[in-house]
Parts: sequence; C-alpha cells; structure tokens
Amino acid sequence: MTKIKAALAENARNVDVMLDALLPIHDDPECRLMEAVRYSCLSGGKRIRPFLVTASAELFGVDEERALRVAAAVEMVHCYSLIHDDLPAMDNDDIRRGMSTCHVKFDEATAILAGDALLTRAFGVLSESATHDDAKVRSDLVCELAQAAGREGMVGGQMLDLLAEHQELAMAEVTRLQRMKTGALIAFSCVAGAILGKSSTSARHALHNYAHDLGLAFQIVDDLLDVEGETAEVGKKTGKDKEAGKATFVSLLGVERAHAQSEMLAEQAANHLEIFAETADPLRDLARFVVNRRS
Amino acid sequence: MTKIKAALAENARNVDVMLDALLPIHDDPECRLMEAVRYSCLSGGKRIRPFLVTASAELFGVDEERALRVAAAVEMVHCYSLIHDDLPAMDNDDIRRGMSTCHVKFDEATAILAGDALLTRAFGVLSESATHDDAKVRSDLVCELAQAAGREGMVGGQMLDLLAEHQELAMAEVTRLQRMKTGALIAFSCVAGAILGKSSTSARHALHNYAHDLGLAFQIVDDLLDVEGETAEVGKKTGKDKEAGKATFVSLLGVERAHAQSEMLAEQAANHLEIFAETADPLRDLARFVVNRRS
Repeated sequence: MTKIKAALAENARNVDVMLDALLPIHDDPECRLMEAVRYSCLSGGKRIRPFLVTASAELFGVDEERALRVAAAVEMVHCYSLIHDDLPAMDNDDIRRGMSTCHVKFDEATAILAGDALLTRAFGVLSESATHDDAKVRSDLVCELAQAAGREGMVGGQMLDLLAEHQELAMAEVTRLQRMKTGALIAFSCVAGAILGKSSTSARHALHNYAHDLGLAFQIVDDLLDVEGETAEVGKKTGKDKEAGKATFVSLLGVERAHAQSEMLAEQAANHLEIFAETADPLRDLARFVVNRRS
Repeated sequence: MTKIKAALAENARNVDVMLDALLPIHDDPECRLMEAVRYSCLSGGKRIRPFLVTASAELFGVDEERALRVAAAVEMVHCYSLIHDDLPAMDNDDIRRGMSTCHVKFDEATAILAGDALLTRAFGVLSESATHDDAKVRSDLVCELAQAAGREGMVGGQMLDLLAEHQELAMAEVTRLQRMKTGALIAFSCVAGAILGKSSTSARHALHNYAHDLGLAFQIVDDLLDVEGETAEVGKKTGKDKEAGKATFVSLLGVERAHAQSEMLAEQAANHLEIFAETADPLRDLARFVVNRRS
C-alpha cells in the first residue's frame, strides 16, 4: 500500500503541474471563470483517473508529457462532472474534497460556466498537436472521450441517477447506472493509454476489461464509504444515499457481501492484466488500493 | 430577401434531418435526457450558424453530408449555450424560440445535463470518421471549436456578460464581450467550411474577417430587436437588456447610429468575400438578411 500511495501522490503532483499549465489564469475581466475552474480542478483528490491514464500509457512506452496531457484532460472532465453534479438542482452538495463546492465558493452561474469551460478545454487539449503527432490518435481520443462522457456514458448515468431517487432498482439496473456514470470515464482512462500507444487490439481489450471490473469495485467501495465513512475523513457528505432513498450496491447486497464483491472484482480486474509483464504492477496495485481505501 | 429566406429554410430542413439522425432517442430509462436535448435542438430557429457552415463549405466543393455534420455540431453547441444561459442562475429566461425554455419544460437538472450532453456530442460528431477521411481535418475542427466555445470564446463571453450587469462598459468592452460570446462561434462556423475544404490560408482569412464583421452586425441587430421588437415576434423576451441595466451597442450608440453601424458592418462583411466568385453570393445575401431581420 505504501508503494501505490507514493506512486499516486507523485503522479498527482505531475498532473497538477500539467493542469496548472493547461488552465492558466490571466488578468482578464472575466478571470473569475478561471478562478472557479482552478479552485475546483487544482484542489487535490486522489487523481485515480489520471493515474490510470499514465500507468496504462507506460505499458506501451508512451512519452510521459503526452500521457500527462491526456491524464489532465480526463481530470478536467471528472471535475466538470463533480461541479455540475454538486449544483443545487442536482445533488445539492456543499462539501467536496473537504472544501466548499464550486457554487458555494463562487455562485451557481459561475459554477455552471466553470464546468462548461472544463469540458470544452478537455476536448481542446486532446486535439492539440502536442498530445500526439498522429492526428488519427488525437481524433480517436476525442471520439472515445465523447462516448464515455456523453449520453451513453457519464451524462446518461447522472440522468439515470437523478431519476432513480426513491425508486426500487434491481441489481442489473444499478450496475448499468454505475457503469455509465462512473465506469465509462474510468474505462476511457485506461483505453486512452492504449490509444496513445497504438497498442494491439488484445492489449486494448485487456485494459478495457480491467477498467470495467475496477470501476464497479470502485463504486461499491464508494457506496460502502457513504454508509461507513465519516464526512471529515471521506471529504464529502456521507449518508447521502440512504437519505435520498437510493438503491446502491450496499442497499442491495448488504455491507458484508458488498465488501466481498468489491474484493472479488479487484482480483478479477488484476487477472485481466495477465498478458502484461510487471510493467502492469502499478495497475495491479491500484486495484488493491481501490478496495482498501478509506476515502 | 426571398431567395435567402428560401435558402435558409431549405438548409434548416437539411440540418434538422442531420440533427435527428445524430441525436436519436431510444427506449432507455434515461430517455428523458434525449427528450430534453431534442426538444431544445429540434425546435426551429433560423439556423444561421449551420447555414454559415454549409455555405462556406460549398465554396470549396465540400461534400454536403460532411458539411451538414459539422453544421449540426455547431447548432448543438449553440443550443447547449442557450439552454445553460436560460437557466434561473444565469439569465433566467422562460421563453425561447416562442416556446418554454428547457428547464421550464423539464426541470433544471435535466436542462443542465441536456446542455452537457449536446456539447459532448458536438465534439463526438466532429471526431467521427464520417465527418472527414483525413483525421487532421477532424482534429483541427475539434481544436478550433474548443477555442471558439471555451473560456476565450463563448463561455468566457457569457461570464463577462454576467459580470457586466449593472456595470458601465465602454464600447471597446462591449465589443470584446460580444466577440467572445457570439462572435467566436459565428467565426468558427465560417472557418469550419475552410477547414473541411482544406482551403488556402487567404480564403480562410477572408472568411474569418467576413464572420467577424457579420457577428458584430448580428449582435447589434439583436440589441435593436431587444429594444424595438415584441416578444411575440422575436420569440424570446424583449426589453431584457434595459431591465438588467446592461450596456449594449444600442445603449452606447443610440438606435439610429446602431442601425447605421449594423448596415456598415454588413457591407464590410460582404466586401471581405471579394476573392470568391458568385459561389459566395449566399454569404453576401446572408449579411444583408442579418441586418434586415425582424426576429
């Protein structure tokens, strides 16, 4: 655990340097927008998605600068989704990563625009030539990210989540919802490394399958933390799911089986990496970290 | 005027067919999202931006299907910006194109997500191989759209607009605001045709200059309609700028000089097209139409 924690922290520092460079602030009259963007995007967090990008890219010897640009783009999309999901009209959250959410710190209008700016910038970053010499790679990254973040992925999942409040969902429905809401961007993070590295189809599939199981394990632990964690430790409000009457993996499986299921999925995730040598150890370690995290 | 009106109407029909195909609705539990997207995006409108894309693309003999895909993507971005700008936390508008705005018809959360989905889909459409065989063209389109729609363009302009309420802005500041808020996407619409057609730099510059003057003329007329028009005719609430204490071209220049300025800009816009033969007549006609429109 110490090794993966150190690796995550080092990667987070590198990603923050890249985010800082890609989201500069100027002395413009509208600088409030970028203040809000930077407040939300440079506010810590484990940076698990960016780690997946760089660790996957490393399997194929991708230049670190390029991987970090894509990692930063993924984090921008993740941050935009948090900003919008936290809005009063959506989940109405005041605390995120232990700090006031964007609309509380600034205002709702600024938060909506900050999210919009982040999503737009993410696509811009992927399309810039510094991301890869080969325009086909850049275009493929944009295409895959749009699928992962759009109506078949993250946005569709958030819609489902809002509709699901106070509804009885079965296991298959909760799984579909989470696969869209959080799984799709996690899958993109891993597949992005394969796209950057122009990997074989089999390597790309292996990473996709790894990400798929990892994403579900991640979500189950999120649900467990919502039940078992304390706001101070987790960094966001807990007990929310029960309050909202949401069906989660924990409400469906119970705490004990949910724990067991997350362990099983993490192991299964690691098993998909068999075709890679020890260069994939960071991804294997991450799978273990995800199910053992306390926040 | 009859010719350009017919051309706009025909193009709008073609764009709607493309939007309908690119924004399909399925029998999913989350179909409310796509209902909201289609409600806002397939609800009429003059489709001036899509017209700029297809008319510019025609200068270079671009395949119509490709031009329509890019035209649809631009309209998606325009619609997303209207949905988000109309939200209670922003301009708080109830009527748009003569219909209830998205958050009134659905709800705020759905409207936020519908905007997010449209923006995401627009980038997806540009990156798909059906948009152009050459990945460099696709990647360039994404890159330019991200600049036009992001913090240096549309989103930054909307932030400026919100900050400008009840502030005394000078002419230069209003011009910068409008260039960002509406001018950037209009400029992209014209430049997109040049990118699709792999045009010469001089042709691309000519189109950019045309769009720049056209965009300002368009905005001045918008400001005039807000002062002189009736809600029923214009299709959105009028008299808003004065109510919000906003500095506009009309409040700075007065009605008469604003009219003269818009005429002058439209003529100047057309003059930038000199390097093109009569194939650019639709763009010339559009410049005249924009300053003579009543809605």
